[in-house]
Amino acid sequence: MTKKIMILPGDGIGPEIVAQARRVLDAVNEHDKLQLEFVDELIGGASIDAHGEPLTDAAVASARECDAILLGAVGGPKWDTIDRAIRPERGLLKIRSSLELYANLRPALLYPQLVEASSLKPEVVSGLDILIVRELTGGIYFGEPRGIRTLENGEREGYNTYKYSESEIERIGRTAFEMARKRNKKVCSVDKANVLEATILWREVMDRLAPEYPDVELSHMYVDNAAMQLVRAPKQFDVLVTGNMFGDILSDAAAMLTGSIGMLPSASLDKQGRGMYEPCHGSAPDIAGQGIANPLATILSASMMLRYSLGFTQSADAIEAAVGKVLDQGLRTADIYTPGSTKVGTREMGDAVLAAL
Amino acid sequence: MTKKIMILPGDGIGPEIVAQARRVLDAVNEHDKLQLEFVDELIGGASIDAHGEPLTDAAVASARECDAILLGAVGGPKWDTIDRAIRPERGLLKIRSSLELYANLRPALLYPQLVEASSLKPEVVSGLDILIVRELTGGIYFGEPRGIRTLENGEREGYNTYKYSESEIERIGRTAFEMARKRNKKVCSVDKANVLEATILWREVMDRLAPEYPDVELSHMYVDNAAMQLVRAPKQFDVLVTGNMFGDILSDAAAMLTGSIGMLPSASLDKQGRGMYEPCHGSAPDIAGQGIANPLATILSASMMLRYSLGFTQSADAIEAAVGKVLDQGLRTADIYTPGSTKVGTREMGDAVLAAL
Ligand SMILES: CC(C)[C@H](C(=O)O)[C@@H](O)C(=O)O
Ligand SMILES: CC(C)[C@H](C(=O)O)[C@@H](O)C(=O)O
Repeated sequence: MTKKIMILPGDGIGPEIVAQARRVLDAVNEHDKLQLEFVDELIGGASIDAHGEPLTDAAVASARECDAILLGAVGGPKWDTIDRAIRPERGLLKIRSSLELYANLRPALLYPQLVEASSLKPEVVSGLDILIVRELTGGIYFGEPRGIRTLENGEREGYNTYKYSESEIERIGRTAFEMARKRNKKVCSVDKANVLEATILWREVMDRLAPEYPDVELSHMYVDNAAMQLVRAPKQFDVLVTGNMFGDILSDAAAMLTGSIGMLPSASLDKQGRGMYEPCHGSAPDIAGQGIANPLATILSASMMLRYSLGFTQSADAIEAAVGKVLDQGLRTADIYTPGSTKVGTREMGDAVLAAL
Repeated sequence: MTKKIMILPGDGIGPEIVAQARRVLDAVNEHDKLQLEFVDELIGGASIDAHGEPLTDAAVASARECDAILLGAVGGPKWDTIDRAIRPERGLLKIRSSLELYANLRPALLYPQLVEASSLKPEVVSGLDILIVRELTGGIYFGEPRGIRTLENGEREGYNTYKYSESEIERIGRTAFEMARKRNKKVCSVDKANVLEATILWREVMDRLAPEYPDVELSHMYVDNAAMQLVRAPKQFDVLVTGNMFGDILSDAAAMLTGSIGMLPSASLDKQGRGMYEPCHGSAPDIAGQGIANPLATILSASMMLRYSLGFTQSADAIEAAVGKVLDQGLRTADIYTPGSTKVGTREMGDAVLAAL
């Protein structure tokens, strides 16, 4: 039975890093006889240039027919000044929302080989392994009404709506509890229930779910405190679950704690576990086309895809072991380079992973 | 001419730390003949216990007659289960909003004596000196409509409204530009203009103000990136300006970078520069009553008050010099203690500052 994978390279360094992940996928496909089939599509600025919009309905329809999606990154200065309604980011929001990819899993994991790359002291971050579970299709990102209007006194006002229904909270809460079961059995739910009603309901629903997962310990933390604790003592966390906006902020901060955001994959899943996989980092237009971007987050995203959406555990294990090996060999792209290691480019890093496979 | 200062000790460690700041104020009042007069009032849990609400209208009316306010901190587990409408935090929100204290200034400053207390590597944070300018009376904290409602399908939904008008953005933007003028002449405005309309207008207004401050360099950053950059390379920032919610999160993260949130004062000013001064940290109920809390953030808040709202620069300088001296002497409360220094309690720290004055 063939599995169809949509490839969305996107913009900036997207095509370069996806090319390396694709080589790795081709290798395991052949070696492990996975019967993967690939469909290429445009998203973000690349799609704007070709079709005048950041993601066509045809691309969405085609994505629905696929078993999983591998995405590079979207956006860049070239499209910064065009009409907001068709900006590259809209393509990303459209695919998340159209395919109901509500569960965004963002691990913040410190590779022992890279502990020096962190801006935090080694004792604060060594062994760090947090999973951020971010709600991805609701909250203030999608809430209506929204816009810019003119008030009676003649001045303008920008407004957005932050909202969560019980069922939206419940399904992401269940994802968090289930993930925690496979890990250290702790969920910390992050809200601002001392100020925002939307998060009062959030906290209530999390508390209601907790008795169904008696083996998991639930705690609550205000978002400002969570941001502090991530800096002060991140190892206190196992799974953090939160809404779309807070998750955007905290997952980036958590990823940066590791000092190697170029290493971190992410998954965005729907309720059947079908999903889109992409690196945590962005399109890095400043280094695009130079062949120096780190392809490992994308390669690891591909392995996460094989594991979670396609069930090819062995191939996923093999890829992850290969990545571990190239790190042990001391190979580093510029973003994770420290004196004493060997600096390599995007393609050389891909070569090394292929050789280690 | 006498100056009236309202003292709001609040809850938890509030009364202990405010007591030390008060001793310091009494000392400079007498020595420098400042003619300060003090009015004591209740806020937060203390006010709930006495009056059934976290801040009475009478207290607000009395605050209006004062030249400045010194606050400890509010909240604690004792009041965690009471009706949300009268929770301790509401007292804080009420005084900010009633007195239109829209400009919240939160410095994140690393004391050279305390570089070891940070969880970040010394080279990343030494010399750190950021000022976060947070809008404090608008945004999602106060936006209407808000609440929890039942949807047609029978489930409940929590909702809040995030909004900013041009005039609200403009006044906080001006504060940021003016502060930058007295510092390193860089303002970074933080928004999420790639997703939220409210912050599209925010960015537009900041850009419109920039030409009026040609000596200040304005840049923009998305909030997720700002959270990352604060962890990665915080010294790139001078003044950060942002809305109420993002400011809450980023200012706590920035304060924690210094490793000594017990050292950081803050000011919340109205358009005449009248203000409320308080430590950046909270009421720390876990250590309340033990006499071990760090009073320096509150003492420095008092000195900030003398400087910005009352114009007593010399007395403010004297207090700050005294704080520097006790740090040089190696005195540390538990929160900033590192081996080799001398651990002291709240009152001993107060004694030491008084002796150094
Ligand atoms: C590009 C942007 C719309 C997006 C988001 O805010 O979700 C990005 O920051 C992310 O976290 O994937
Ligand atoms: C206590 C709470 C309402 C408050 C806020 O969110 O503004 C606090 O976190 C702060 O930053 O002063």
